[in-house]
Amino acid sequence: MDLETPYLVFLGDAKDALAAKTGQGIVDWRPEAVAGQLRLPGCYADLGVADLSIQQAAEAGTRTFLIGVVNPGGVLPKQWQGVIVEALAAGLDVANGLHTPLDSIPEIIEAARRSDRRLIETRRPAGPFPVASGRQRTGKRLLTVGTDCSVGKKYAALAIERELVARNVAADFRATGQTGILIAGSGIPIDAVVADFAAGAAETLSPDNDPDHWDVVEGQGSLFHPSFAGVSLALLHGTQPDAFVVCHEPTRKTMRNVDAPIAGIDAVIEQTMVLGRLTNPAVRCVGIALNTSELDAGGASRTIEQTRRQFGVPVCDPVRHGVEAIVDEMLP
Amino acid sequence: MDLETPYLVFLGDAKDALAAKTGQGIVDWRPEAVAGQLRLPGCYADLGVADLSIQQAAEAGTRTFLIGVVNPGGVLPKQWQGVIVEALAAGLDVANGLHTPLDSIPEIIEAARRSDRRLIETRRPAGPFPVASGRQRTGKRLLTVGTDCSVGKKYAALAIERELVARNVAADFRATGQTGILIAGSGIPIDAVVADFAAGAAETLSPDNDPDHWDVVEGQGSLFHPSFAGVSLALLHGTQPDAFVVCHEPTRKTMRNVDAPIAGIDAVIEQTMVLGRLTNPAVRCVGIALNTSELDAGGASRTIEQTRRQFGVPVCDPVRHGVEAIVDEMLP
Repeated sequence: MDLETPYLVFLGDAKDALAAKTGQGIVDWRPEAVAGQLRLPGCYADLGVADLSIQQAAEAGTRTFLIGVVNPGGVLPKQWQGVIVEALAAGLDVANGLHTPLDSIPEIIEAARRSDRRLIETRRPAGPFPVASGRQRTGKRLLTVGTDCSVGKKYAALAIERELVARNVAADFRATGQTGILIAGSGIPIDAVVADFAAGAAETLSPDNDPDHWDVVEGQGSLFHPSFAGVSLALLHGTQPDAFVVCHEPTRKTMRNVDAPIAGIDAVIEQTMVLGRLTNPAVRCVGIALNTSELDAGGASRTIEQTRRQFGVPVCDPVRHGVEAIVDEMLP
Repeated sequence: MDLETPYLVFLGDAKDALAAKTGQGIVDWRPEAVAGQLRLPGCYADLGVADLSIQQAAEAGTRTFLIGVVNPGGVLPKQWQGVIVEALAAGLDVANGLHTPLDSIPEIIEAARRSDRRLIETRRPAGPFPVASGRQRTGKRLLTVGTDCSVGKKYAALAIERELVARNVAADFRATGQTGILIAGSGIPIDAVVADFAAGAAETLSPDNDPDHWDVVEGQGSLFHPSFAGVSLALLHGTQPDAFVVCHEPTRKTMRNVDAPIAGIDAVIEQTMVLGRLTNPAVRCVGIALNTSELDAGGASRTIEQTRRQFGVPVCDPVRHGVEAIVDEMLP
């Protein structure tokens, strides 16, 4: 799945900034890929980039109309269909991460066919993928793992890629979820792959590379999340990481959406080591990324210091302080 | 996925008994479900049941024409199409575990439509399945786990179900692979479910039940198989077993189809305990099932005795000696 840039980021009639979180992520992490935004009447979000009509965007060389807004239930509202048809007619691909597939709407299929443009579903894996071989690949890999879902695994991976590139280390962020895919412009929605091929898809995502190149792979779920641990394990085995970072939200008590306590950092480190060694005997923990957004500055510093003393590895909040200490630990 | 019995087991032009392994499994484990076999010229397999034509089978009340033979590559040979069409015309459903889907063949689709019969693909999950909730269910569950693929997990589970039923304990074998599904007449091919829903499918497979009822769930892969461990973990979490049996082939040195050493029984017990506790804190190992088919009688006895001393749990070869000791350990 490869998206062509630059993007016109569509915000629809987003009720607030949170609804435009996907678009914001793209502007934050891939500003050079964004030509502008398109907002409908009633839109209360603003990404701080140029407002462009579809005509203006097409004239400016925009290649992809990217739906950067989430709607309640992930449904595509009827009032967006006209704009999507217009974008296709103007020669743009359309990329969609909503639950409603674009090719479930006859008007949109017909418009794509007429202008020979692509409808790109970031929830739908490209495939087919092979069964994982377990063969050791060349190049280096880091995987972000978690004590739960939604603890900052994507953000930590993006921050690590950025820091590596800033130090002139060859690196690629490898997206495994739909928002990550829209940010990176490519990737595999690993949880949508048939279970038998999930580890094989992870192998495909981070192929052989130069010896000093780092693939920084976005983690999913948690080995201790009862709904998604199988996905996390397939991703661990397929990625065969040399290094992993444990992501954790220190104020959270229970796993998201299930009645289970959040996993301990110690348990996640231990299991990731034991299970990760299967495909990479040299796997090691190079740091802990704490999401301290629920704490004040003093509380965040105390928690980070305490965690560092407890585990003896670099600990940072990627949002507050960056990931320099983790990258220091990764590199020789 | 539910198959109606009795079956007419189709062996095609099976080159040898091994090619008819699926059919043999059904006759071994569900003899009461088998009305007879249908063999084409050139068939060298024989299940030891009545040879019936399709007409005879239909008159005897047969409900399902079941493809009980595997062909190289899992492809459906052209010369079988006519027989399948004839079976549909005679009012039978057709159940298929080969890679080639029946509904990829226009003549077969048309025949099924004309007689309003079902084409049942045991490789294709029925779905949709929910995301796993992790909620503790009523009733008891046993899962067979392995140090590798193809070490006897299906056989051990079937033997345990049979022994429980013989002792008047309510029990159901729950199939997770295609041959198991054909034997049981129902089940979910867990490795064909989309990764995000694999644990949820496992929950669906062994629902709430009477407090003393046992679901005996067929395991898949191994937590230490680099291709399939994610499937194994989803199945462990979704099954939430009270008890597990480790299946092992003591002469095997490397994992099937990959370049990795076979896992140790100790590692499999430990990881199954640590990871299994997430959805059932009371999970425990009730035995080890050794597949000693590569050893002579003396070697088998010595290996079993040695394994028993090492792990302190019941150890048997289900084929040579049955599973009485394991079932003694399961029951209060």
